[in-house]
Amino acid sequence: MNYPNGINKTSKNIISNSNRGMTLESMINNTNDYYIANDIAYIYKKPIPIQVVEVDYKNRKQTMIKKAFYTTPSTTDYNGLYKGYYIDFEAKECNSKTSFALSNLHNHQFLHLHNICKHNGIGFIIIKFSYYNEVFLLEFNKLNEFIINNDRKSIPYKWIILNSYKINESFRPQLDYLKCVDLILEKRYKNE
Amino acid sequence: MNYPNGINKTSKNIISNSNRGMTLESMINNTNDYYIANDIAYIYKKPIPIQVVEVDYKNRKQTMIKKAFYTTPSTTDYNGLYKGYYIDFEAKECNSKTSFALSNLHNHQFLHLHNICKHNGIGFIIIKFSYYNEVFLLEFNKLNEFIINNDRKSIPYKWIILNSYKINESFRPQLDYLKCVDLILEKRYKNE
Repeated sequence: MNYPNGINKTSKNIISNSNRGMTLESMINNTNDYYIANDIAYIYKKPIPIQVVEVDYKNRKQTMIKKAFYTTPSTTDYNGLYKGYYIDFEAKECNSKTSFALSNLHNHQFLHLHNICKHNGIGFIIIKFSYYNEVFLLEFNKLNEFIINNDRKSIPYKWIILNSYKINESFRPQLDYLKCVDLILEKRYKNE
Repeated sequence: MNYPNGINKTSKNIISNSNRGMTLESMINNTNDYYIANDIAYIYKKPIPIQVVEVDYKNRKQTMIKKAFYTTPSTTDYNGLYKGYYIDFEAKECNSKTSFALSNLHNHQFLHLHNICKHNGIGFIIIKFSYYNEVFLLEFNKLNEFIINNDRKSIPYKWIILNSYKINESFRPQLDYLKCVDLILEKRYKNE
């Protein structure tokens, strides 16, 4: 690990090469494992839904699936509990240097996050710009504002820098996104 | 449907035969669909985790899984959001007339519900006694008390009647367990 805990890599001139080969999913899973092991939060990745067509049933423990297909998830990838709050998010890697294509999110995921926020859950997306090796947390409400006020089919990288929280990589947890959730909660208390 | 909305079937002399063939899972799924369609709560069943061993990869949409196995879920079956609260539960059918075997719950599910309650989530189990066609919501904290105070490996049916909420069947939603969650929330407010 090149960057010890606490070093802030916000300068765009320095592009981190650490964990470049590591997928965003692995980084989030590592982080969630850390949160669980340290009794901080209970957030899990949902299993990928699979439609099972044919099985070879020997006994209950040894059933082998012989034919199955991946199906589209109806919600987001991650949800769970932090400080009594319901947390719900989708994570996406982005190869573009300049923008995040909105087609990365399915309509039903968008609708799901909308419903979550309406019912006082905390909904967001985590975007990794692979080129810069930078990760951002974008609140769903901010994303929604962008979509309402723009005709664009992608969100400019520069807009994301200004309107989301940067998640800095650290040693443990690797991607401490709950620091950003704390800032969201602070903002919520102030508005109450 | 034999029982219109609102009829209370608590008398043990009358055993409902409606939906007897319907699994508890189907009844809960129907109910969750109703909650979602009516913007009441966003609670979903998690997909069953499957370990994929071999795939036939044609293209991204047509990948066929040729060999896979069911794996043990690390958490409970259902979670979601209601009135800003994190909801988490496991549902179990029970064939015994006299008791609910604790072996129905995996250790890691028990631990998971323990963690959820500790962090101010609402954790419970839904038990269906198939013989009586009766469904109960048992708060995790009550279940935990029972386990601490008893050496038994099963919870007597009579104890469950006294210490849990009965969920009455109705037309729509079929199994309105959020009524019980409302009572749990009322109790929580009073204790604050």
